[in-house]
This record gives sequence, structure tokens and C-alpha cells, in this order.
Amino acid sequence: MAGKQKKALRGACIVAQSGGPTAVINASICGAISAAIQSPYITRVLGAQNGIKGLLEERFFDLEQEEVAEIKFLTNTPGAALGTCRYRLPAYEEDKKEYRQLLKIFKKYDVRYFFYNGGNDSMDTCNKIAAYLQRVKYTCRVIGIPKTIDNDLCGTDHCPGYGSAAKYIATSMAELATDTRSYDPGSVVIAEIMGRNAGWLTAASALAKEVGAGPDLIYLPEVPFVLDMFLARTAAIYQDKGSCVVAVSEGIKDEKGVFIAAYADERQDAFGHVQMGGVAAVLAAAVKNTLGCKVRAIEFSLLQRSAAHLVSQIDMVEAYSVGVAAVEQAVSGASSQMIGLVRLKEEAYNSDIVMVPLEEAANLEKTVPRDWISEIGDNVTDAFVDYALPLIQGEAQRVYENGLPRYARLQKVPATPGKAVEPAAKP
Amino acid sequence: MAGKQKKALRGACIVAQSGGPTAVINASICGAISAAIQSPYITRVLGAQNGIKGLLEERFFDLEQEEVAEIKFLTNTPGAALGTCRYRLPAYEEDKKEYRQLLKIFKKYDVRYFFYNGGNDSMDTCNKIAAYLQRVKYTCRVIGIPKTIDNDLCGTDHCPGYGSAAKYIATSMAELATDTRSYDPGSVVIAEIMGRNAGWLTAASALAKEVGAGPDLIYLPEVPFVLDMFLARTAAIYQDKGSCVVAVSEGIKDEKGVFIAAYADERQDAFGHVQMGGVAAVLAAAVKNTLGCKVRAIEFSLLQRSAAHLVSQIDMVEAYSVGVAAVEQAVSGASSQMIGLVRLKEEAYNSDIVMVPLEEAANLEKTVPRDWISEIGDNVTDAFVDYALPLIQGEAQRVYENGLPRYARLQKVPATPGKAVEPAAKP
Repeated sequence: MAGKQKKALRGACIVAQSGGPTAVINASICGAISAAIQSPYITRVLGAQNGIKGLLEERFFDLEQEEVAEIKFLTNTPGAALGTCRYRLPAYEEDKKEYRQLLKIFKKYDVRYFFYNGGNDSMDTCNKIAAYLQRVKYTCRVIGIPKTIDNDLCGTDHCPGYGSAAKYIATSMAELATDTRSYDPGSVVIAEIMGRNAGWLTAASALAKEVGAGPDLIYLPEVPFVLDMFLARTAAIYQDKGSCVVAVSEGIKDEKGVFIAAYADERQDAFGHVQMGGVAAVLAAAVKNTLGCKVRAIEFSLLQRSAAHLVSQIDMVEAYSVGVAAVEQAVSGASSQMIGLVRLKEEAYNSDIVMVPLEEAANLEKTVPRDWISEIGDNVTDAFVDYALPLIQGEAQRVYENGLPRYARLQKVPATPGKAVEPAAKP
Repeated sequence: MAGKQKKALRGACIVAQSGGPTAVINASICGAISAAIQSPYITRVLGAQNGIKGLLEERFFDLEQEEVAEIKFLTNTPGAALGTCRYRLPAYEEDKKEYRQLLKIFKKYDVRYFFYNGGNDSMDTCNKIAAYLQRVKYTCRVIGIPKTIDNDLCGTDHCPGYGSAAKYIATSMAELATDTRSYDPGSVVIAEIMGRNAGWLTAASALAKEVGAGPDLIYLPEVPFVLDMFLARTAAIYQDKGSCVVAVSEGIKDEKGVFIAAYADERQDAFGHVQMGGVAAVLAAAVKNTLGCKVRAIEFSLLQRSAAHLVSQIDMVEAYSVGVAAVEQAVSGASSQMIGLVRLKEEAYNSDIVMVPLEEAANLEKTVPRDWISEIGDNVTDAFVDYALPLIQGEAQRVYENGLPRYARLQKVPATPGKAVEPAAKP
């Protein structure tokens, strides 16, 4: 999709990252940085350290000082390579100070392009900045580059980062299930997967069924969780198969909307213990108490978002593409938009770029449709598998050095203020 | 190394697996099964389901009914493909019943070769069976095929399964550390790694330093753990770097020999909580209480032994080789031995097969030498890195199908009793 061609805008760009990393978040900035370096309109390519937080503290890297080969290694690198933050801008009406600080800094570096790589909260920040800059009539094109393992951004078919997390979760679930079922009798394994309100990641465990090693039960936050029903189902499966493998979202709640993870305190007396940690530990204690069999609670924790060693090829290519598209669209005149992905109605899976107004993406959370979850609420349907399976296809080639993954080694040279020095003006 | 050539022994063989799986345990039985099928002396290749437990219940598969291609896929498959067990044979003096049952079954199937793929306990079982069969003068060659992620078997430089677990742990630690250090400030991350008495696996986290993303502190069970010193070190590193990444063995004990994981109950009042789960949760609560910063406890749990998607090439080749060697050595006359690995004194890493008497391998646990651990006990030395780094080299090629790993699909055809039908006698 081509944006409308507006008047060419020359100036510096800032690239920044925010929120929890994904395994391919750096593929997106790799795309954005590479496209920005190549653009004749973008005079300087600055990276803000630790997102909006570092931006307001004027902590910038001059990304044109980096070696091209190291920028390419960003696609092999976990974490947020520029640094990330948990910081969210206050509303302009509540506190104008940071907006004015931002404007001062943008002028100081002649920033005309701002690319923010993040999830719902980051799109909110992006939206606020875009609105403020319009209000003060400072010309700057603001584009959101989506990322989140949670897959809960609106306006896009799916989010870069989700496919790789889904591939990691499906693969790890297949490994756990295969290990557990090697024993006779096996045990009850309860795997806790991220997702406070949306069950996309937990649902991805169902893909392990494609190799005959999926979980027996899957619980998402979209459907109220009934502890007694869970215990009855687990007992029945354990008695039948000698093992039971359960995938559960950290955010499951009961019919009153109480997080099951919060049952720990309430249940102190019944189980004789107070649990620390998440919902898997609570459920494991409940199963242990009821069935008395061997039970393990396993949290995928940060592993599911940082596993750069097992990345979906489709996801990595798309993550790179949204970074490139952000720059191309901005240069063509787009602003106040997030880059989204649309699934094409073709026989084989294919996607294209769409523009999503930032206010549509900010703050909202997209959850798993109810009809993609089984009626009883302990599994997903084929419609979910049809949606998610294409997103985990292909294994991105990983570069190893001495038996370990090779990460980008950025020099992170601090940027000096001022406009770009034009080549002709250089000594 | 060639065994002494004894009189050729013809008969069936049993291959079985026991104890916790590793990512390459099935590569070992792949080697053993392939070599047994090719041997002119081995008339039948039987797999016992769930180790010694299934053997005593006469649950055998006829492995010659499997497709060759599927046997090869065993190198791509986690868990214990034949099934495993936690069962340990009683001493012959205490209970003769199971030994007599075993002899009856061995005679019924004309079993002359027994290959048991397991760790310390399994070598004990193997040793007891070998001694019993000698006592009753039943000719059968008994060979142990080593496996354990714990790397604690004596008589071998290292254990098949360790290199892959070490590679997974080092890679995952690098990912966790890189993710954590993306934030400003970051958090304290405490990763709990398997190892009740030996710290080999936890020590492997140090290899992540090779990519500049290693843990700040490493605690092994070989050195008494002092909680106050740990808290002081963590606070100092957190204040200096804004984050602290800790690798800790599940089995660390204080100076009185009390497991730190057992502090949960004692510490109920001090922290206001009782922890369920392991040592990482106990330490996380202690750090939270002292530093007040963001803390995460992460257990690698079963993931570290089942991650067949990230396997060391060296480890996989060695795991396959010990399986082949077990059959070759047995056919050549060896018995009551475990196959071990010796590191050759060559410039590049290389290993060879050695024979280890079963009584030397059974029950003993090899721990990390004290001088491979730093004096203060919170890190490992270069000597450990020199030892472990060669074992994680190379990435074994993984086969994927539809975006997910392709596991062996064994038919597991039940074996019928009796001697092998000789080809000439077939209709």
C-alpha cells in the first residue's frame, strides 16, 4: 500500500523501543534503521536509549556510526537492543512539562520523523506525541511500529513477535508433553503462559497437537475458570491416560472476575500452604491436594518472549517489513499511524501492510474470539489453529559463534545535538 | 577401543531407557538399535517399554518392525521414546522375586544382550542384573549406555545429554540477561537450574559470558550458601549495574547442610509468606524484602532436559556413538561395563570410547571440582569454561514439519515370545 505523496520532509529521525521485548523486536528496528539510512530525506538516524524515558533525557545514539554488519545482527538479538522502558506519558492536559521538553529536544536535533516500536501503551504514547506536535504546529511524522508477544493490538491481523512466541510455546509444550508421557504413570504438568486479558499465547500451545504432543487442557482468560470443573477434568484425563498436560493463561479469572492466582491467600488453610508465584502454582497445589499424584508447575516466564534462538521465519520477515514500511510511509507523508498487517485472501499464507490510525490501536486490547474457544472452555477450535499455524512457519536462520548465538555488538556512540552535517559541507 | 574378542554369542537383545530423559537420550538408542539391527549375532531387537518396569511386565516392542526412517527421527525426538521409569531394583539379598522373573523372561525371549540407557540409578540396576545373571550362570552381556543432564556419572569425562542441556541453559541465560538488561533500571532475575548435589548444569550458565550476557552470580551445591552474603552481593551489583542476574542450583545448602529451598517454612514470618516451589522463589522473596526492586524467579524445570530443538552437535554425535559402541563392545565380548567417554589430549576437542566397570559408575556422583569454583563461591573459573565450552559446539540439524519439530513415529508393535525366526526357516 502506498501512502499519499506529500511534500518531501527533510530532517533527523528517532527510533525507539518500549515495553516488553519480543524475539523479533530488533528485526523491526533493523528494518527501520536500514530504511532510514537509505532514505535521502532522513538526514540523521538517532536511537533513543530506553524509549521515551531516554528521549526526554536526551540520551541518543548516532546509529550511522554502527557497522552495517552489526545492524544486520539485530535480527539475531533478543531483548530491546536500544533499551526499553515501562514509562507512559501523562495526558497533555495533566502535565505539559514533558511535552515541552520533547519539543525542545526535537527542535535541537531537527527531528522530523519519530518511530516508536511497542505495544498498546506505546501506541498511546505515540498518539499523544503526534497530537501534541500537531497542536503546536511542529512538523514531524509519527509512526508506530507494532510489537507484542500478546497479539492483542487492534487494527492488525496479528502482531510481530506473536508468531515467534507461539512457535516457542508450541515447541516447548510438545517437548514437555513428550517428556511427561514417557513415564508410566506420568504426572500432571501445568504450564503457565503469559497473557493477563488475552489468551493468544496460551492458545498457541494447541499447535503442539500438530505433532501429536499437545496439551490435554487449555484455559484462556476469555472464559471464566471454574476450579472444580478443572479438577474433575484433570482427574478424568489422568486416570485415563496416566498423565495430564495443562496450558493455562496467567490471567484466568473465576466467574466473579477474581484472578485464580489470587486464590493463594484464600486457600492457605485448605492446602496448608500459601503460594507465591503464579496461577500454575495455585492449580498445582489444588491438584496435588485432590489427586495426590506427581504435579509440576512450570512458568515459561521471560523465556517465551526472549527465545531469539527459535524464531518463526514468517514472523521475522514481517517484523523487519513493518520497520521498513514505517520509514517508507512516513517519508511518503503518513503520520499518526501504526503499521498493521492484513492477511491476504490467497491460497498460501501471505500478508500486506496496512495503516491503522494510532487512536484505533492505542490502549484497546484484542482478545480471542469466543467461537475460537471450545464450548466448555477448556480448548481451542480448529478456527484458531487455522489462524495461528501460518504464523509459526519457517525457522529463521540463526548465526552461532563458538556454540552460542551471535548478538549485535552496537557501539552506541552518543549523538551530538544539531542538524545533520550535509556531505557537501563536510571538510 | 576394541574389546577382547570372545566366543560369538547369538541371541536377542533388549534395549531400555530409565530415569529422566535428556534431549539426546533417543540418539543413544537410535545408535544402539541401528547397530543391533546390523549385527549378525543379534537375532532380535526388542525394546522394553518403561525400562526395567516394563521388562518385568513383559512389555516388549519388536523394533525390527519399525521403519528405518522413523528410527533415524529418534535423534530429533525428546522424552524417552521407549518410555522410562523411576523404578530401581531391590538388592538380590532382599528380594529375589524380580530377579527370577527377569531370568524367566530372558529365557523366554532368548535374550543374550541387555542395553540399559540411564544415569547413576540405572547403572546400579544394570550392575545388579549383570551380577545376578553371572551368579545363575545365564550367559548374557549387560552394558550400560550413559545419559544424564546432571553430568554426575563417574568414570567418564562427561555424560551424553549434558552438552545439550548446557547449550540450552547458556543460550537461555544469555536471552534472559539480555532481556533484563534492556530496562533501566532492570530487575533481579534468579534462574533455578537442576542439580541436587552436583552443580554442572548451573555452572554451564557461565558459558553465556562468551556472548557478553552471562549471569552476575552463580551458586552451586558444592559450596555452602550464605544468604546474607548473597543478599549483599546482589544489592551491590544491582546498585552498580541496575540489574542482577543470578544462576542457582536447586540443591544449594547452607553451612549446616540445610537446603535453602527448605527455608520457605522457616521464613514464613520474616517475609509474611510461605513459598511453594524451589530455591529461586525463596531467594526472590528474600531479595524483594531487602532491596524492594522488581524480582523474578524463573525455573528452567523440565525445559532444560527436553529441549530437543536446541541440541549440541558434539553431544548428539557422542550420544549416538555410545549407543553404537554398547552393541559393538557387547558383541565383541564385553559385559558388566558402562560405555564412557575420554577426552583426547589433542589441540581441537575430540573424544573416544572407554569401558567403565558398572560398579564404578553405579550410585556414585561426580561433583564440580572445588578449584573450578571461585574462592568466594559465587562464580566458576576459566578451568570450568575450558572443560564445558567444547561440549556445546555445533548446532544439530533439526527437522521441522509445518513449523514444528518432526518426532519419530514408532509403531511399537508388541513382540511375541520365543527365539528369532531364522530367515531360512521363514515360509
